[in-house]
Amino acid sequence: MANHMMDFPLNTIDILKSAALRYPEKEVVSALPDGSMHRYTYADSYKRAAQVANCLKSLSVKKGDHVATLAVNHYRHFELYYGISGMGGVVHTLNARLFVEQLEYIINHAEDSYLFIDPEFLPQIEALAGKIPTVRGVIILCDEDKMPESSVFKLQNYETLIKAQSETYEWPRLDSKHPCGLCYTSGTTGNPKGVMYEQGSTVLHAMMGGGSHFLNFDEWTVAMPIVPMYHVVAWGIPFSAPLYGAKLVLPGCALSGENIHRLIEEEQVNKSYAVPTVWLTLHNYLQATGKTIESLKLVGVGGAASPKALVKTFAEKYDVYWMGIWGMTETSPLATGAILTPEMSDLSAEECYELQSSAGKPIFGVEIEIFDANGNPLPHDGVTRGDLRVRGPWVLSSYYKSEGSNSFVDGWFETGDVAVINPEGYLRVVDRSKDVIKSGGEWISSVELENAALNYPAVNEACVIGAAHEKWDERPIMLVTLREGEDYNEDDLKRVLTEKVAKWWLPDAIIVVDELPHTGTGKLKKVDIRNEYRQYLLENYN
Amino acid sequence: MANHMMDFPLNTIDILKSAALRYPEKEVVSALPDGSMHRYTYADSYKRAAQVANCLKSLSVKKGDHVATLAVNHYRHFELYYGISGMGGVVHTLNARLFVEQLEYIINHAEDSYLFIDPEFLPQIEALAGKIPTVRGVIILCDEDKMPESSVFKLQNYETLIKAQSETYEWPRLDSKHPCGLCYTSGTTGNPKGVMYEQGSTVLHAMMGGGSHFLNFDEWTVAMPIVPMYHVVAWGIPFSAPLYGAKLVLPGCALSGENIHRLIEEEQVNKSYAVPTVWLTLHNYLQATGKTIESLKLVGVGGAASPKALVKTFAEKYDVYWMGIWGMTETSPLATGAILTPEMSDLSAEECYELQSSAGKPIFGVEIEIFDANGNPLPHDGVTRGDLRVRGPWVLSSYYKSEGSNSFVDGWFETGDVAVINPEGYLRVVDRSKDVIKSGGEWISSVELENAALNYPAVNEACVIGAAHEKWDERPIMLVTLREGEDYNEDDLKRVLTEKVAKWWLPDAIIVVDELPHTGTGKLKKVDIRNEYRQYLLENYN
Ligand SMILES: Nc1ncnc2c1ncn2[C@@H]1O[C@H](COP(=O)(O)OP(=O)(O)OP(=O)(O)O)[C@@H](O)[C@H]1O
Ligand SMILES: Nc1ncnc2c1ncn2[C@@H]1O[C@H](COP(=O)(O)OP(=O)(O)OP(=O)(O)O)[C@@H](O)[C@H]1O
Ligand SMILES: [Mg+2]
Ligand SMILES: [Mg+2]
Repeated sequence: MANHMMDFPLNTIDILKSAALRYPEKEVVSALPDGSMHRYTYADSYKRAAQVANCLKSLSVKKGDHVATLAVNHYRHFELYYGISGMGGVVHTLNARLFVEQLEYIINHAEDSYLFIDPEFLPQIEALAGKIPTVRGVIILCDEDKMPESSVFKLQNYETLIKAQSETYEWPRLDSKHPCGLCYTSGTTGNPKGVMYEQGSTVLHAMMGGGSHFLNFDEWTVAMPIVPMYHVVAWGIPFSAPLYGAKLVLPGCALSGENIHRLIEEEQVNKSYAVPTVWLTLHNYLQATGKTIESLKLVGVGGAASPKALVKTFAEKYDVYWMGIWGMTETSPLATGAILTPEMSDLSAEECYELQSSAGKPIFGVEIEIFDANGNPLPHDGVTRGDLRVRGPWVLSSYYKSEGSNSFVDGWFETGDVAVINPEGYLRVVDRSKDVIKSGGEWISSVELENAALNYPAVNEACVIGAAHEKWDERPIMLVTLREGEDYNEDDLKRVLTEKVAKWWLPDAIIVVDELPHTGTGKLKKVDIRNEYRQYLLENYN
Repeated sequence: MANHMMDFPLNTIDILKSAALRYPEKEVVSALPDGSMHRYTYADSYKRAAQVANCLKSLSVKKGDHVATLAVNHYRHFELYYGISGMGGVVHTLNARLFVEQLEYIINHAEDSYLFIDPEFLPQIEALAGKIPTVRGVIILCDEDKMPESSVFKLQNYETLIKAQSETYEWPRLDSKHPCGLCYTSGTTGNPKGVMYEQGSTVLHAMMGGGSHFLNFDEWTVAMPIVPMYHVVAWGIPFSAPLYGAKLVLPGCALSGENIHRLIEEEQVNKSYAVPTVWLTLHNYLQATGKTIESLKLVGVGGAASPKALVKTFAEKYDVYWMGIWGMTETSPLATGAILTPEMSDLSAEECYELQSSAGKPIFGVEIEIFDANGNPLPHDGVTRGDLRVRGPWVLSSYYKSEGSNSFVDGWFETGDVAVINPEGYLRVVDRSKDVIKSGGEWISSVELENAALNYPAVNEACVIGAAHEKWDERPIMLVTLREGEDYNEDDLKRVLTEKVAKWWLPDAIIVVDELPHTGTGKLKKVDIRNEYRQYLLENYN
């Protein structure tokens, strides 16, 4: 084919370079573990990214090599994203919430060359001494005078390594298919699988993810990704925010309601992103203290279904628009979102909450469809459930090292989620196919039951699983944790449920527990819960 | 290289498909030649684009074939953009203002297969009968009952052809390097040269051109591109508006001040795009009638330098933000723009007008640099002039049929423009290298002199060229057209000029003329003016 336009594949480093030129004074603000704040600009960051790249070169890291990070959201992690990927390396973000055995598995699977870690995570890494043979060094992300001790590793200090380096780097122009990031799935449903992001897919994802029809970043935006940089690239916000000139607030490990509130107020955050439980935590804190969050205008909420009750609370109590988002590690992750539209001004509040708590419509570039078990597309009628498939330029075509190849059908990626699509194109993920409860041949959505339970004030969190049942094969049981200071009564809860779901969906047992297990990204670990409670009905009701 | 992400090159048709899904009810409104309005939605348009594609198939148009259009801004032209490029053809937009000989040259050069033309342009095409051998048919863009007669061509009606066709089409997924559009330069400086746009470059240009850091389109936008669809794709707005869900107002051939005013008011246009002279026309109309343009918030102005006096007028009289834009046919065309920034609220009005009348900063993806005659980069100090080069994924790497290959240096495209860049990165195109006046070894910017003259109320338009001079080699002379009802006096004009430019820049002669010649896209045809006035000083002052 004749070549008419320049072969000029955009690379991740172009984003920071452009931000340093277009928005040189715009800040990246980080909450540090000691409670202090670190501030610098995109222009500063671009220089330090060059120092990182020069440092990697001096460590003999080559194009395509994997460099792992184990760190929360802060400026050093941010500049590592750019420095590593900019010189052609692959940023492998290790999920800080994984068990030590999972970390070992993943580091070896990925064959990481260096580990750049927060000092807090040193114990996890020390536990792997002698078990991660590809790792040539461990570099600690902290000030020179704050280095931890280690008896098992010869640690290096990040600042010591980079300060000697030049602030410019001859960035290579990398092919759009060149790998730049590696992230493993959460491991909610089984062993984590690796997803390799590419230069081109990452830049496109940032362009469209941050675009006016999705996260809608601009120079007036103060964005705080609470979603971790150690998992799915904090939804790509470390790339989309500088691309569109947004100020970035990185909350570190300060994820209590109090800290989140403080950061919003002090930095005048107007958009923030997290899984639903984070917003529940913030709400509980604001309720308890009577504090407010005036600057906040929007929360983007994904990783799990949005409880409609919380959508309503955020609208009515805090005047915050709740934007439901669906995505997966496998989709970079942004795929669909319930953005604010002009049409919403003609809808009732309830109708709006319904849309906002859905997963919204696909971002430009992404296509979604639901299919039946035979691979036939299903109607978009808002009730028919089907297996959700997705495709687009930032959707994976194979897992790292070609695992899970049965997920790819006719050019689509089979998500493992069960969903409905309404006539306006809004997606609602009703369950994971592994979590759907099959009761006498009919499907019950665990997610819908859980969200229904949140309408009862005493319920803090609910988890519904299918327990084995002699007659119906599976029946739902519900585990709940309670909110302090509210009265709980099982019959009242059942009455609330009856208002929201069909009678035959009502759980066969409701069990109050102190705590529910979550994955690192704040999701219910239903595998564990199922392991524990699978036989509950057989054991207790027979 | 291992393949991790889907090979899913985005195509132009994905934009309309996505608009039909995401914004099905959003309107495309067209002003028709009879003064009536045509309205339909993106969903309607997507169906008709499929009919166009099916029609082309039935006419044996193949992937890669060139299909020419000669039409103003209206819905049929809009759906042709998508139908032709979607099925793999190339939309060759013929510039309606070219001379018949230029049209002949271009159609033959491009080897066009079919012509889709507005009935108004039939005479131009009839003049080419027998001279355009590759053309297999002429299709008229009008209602079935309004077909013009032709004694030289067997004309076909567009509606007749498409109405029989299916409203769905199996759109192919085309390589990102697949050609999709062909446009020739304006021919301001010489013979028009062909620029071939690609599927990938066009979609990227739409993503970033319409993005929040540039044209800033969203579902609240009502965009009216007055820049013609027959030249540089109306700045890509027919792609970026549907991508971001903006309502599109296509003004047809109704480009008088009165008509533009009417469209803005009736359709509540809030953003509109045109060359500077259009805004001068509108301003003159509003001045004469006392009418207002309440809905309009922003004008994007490019194709020629922005006169600061007009920027000020639009701000102070109409509360409209004037966004200076620089681009070329060769850059798809959007490259740099003076967007509204938060920092502007800290600047004085005059400082803002200065920035707005510049060409702004590069859009994400585009890089610019100025060089001296030896190819060394020059400082960004706001005063040093240099040859402007540009690069990026929507910048051409060669002209169609490889003409003008000396414009490509070290991976850059040499624009032929002379520019300065200020320390904040703002670009100002001070002249074309062919128009710069070289007076005794020093450079005088014709553009700056022209803009200075606009500060004198009686001057409607000014044109400065270098006239041959015995002693200084070249000296500037100025031609002006006058505004009705204002007093003109040459000494007063010179006094105004002295306030803005160095004394030795003052033109050696000022000549009042009735009219100045323009290209089809509204630019001064300095080649013609130079031809006529080149010897003026030698002849009149010797
Ligand atoms: N808006 C949403 N509504 C419902 N579920 C969601 C939503 N957003 C994300 N999810 C769930 O999160 C999943 C993606 O999460 P992630 O990629 O982090 O790993 P995981 O699927 O939890 O782990 P693993 O794939 O290893 O089991 C989706 O497949 C979906 O089940
Ligand atoms: N903001 C601006 N300020 C000054 N000049 C501008 C601006 N925007 C565009 N131009 C001029 O317009 C040119 C691009 O116009 P276009 O591609 O339509 O064809 P042309 O250059 O006029 O014709 P040809 O290349 O055939 O001579 C630029 O190279 C520049 O000279
Ligand atoms: Mg998963
Ligand atoms: Mg040109």
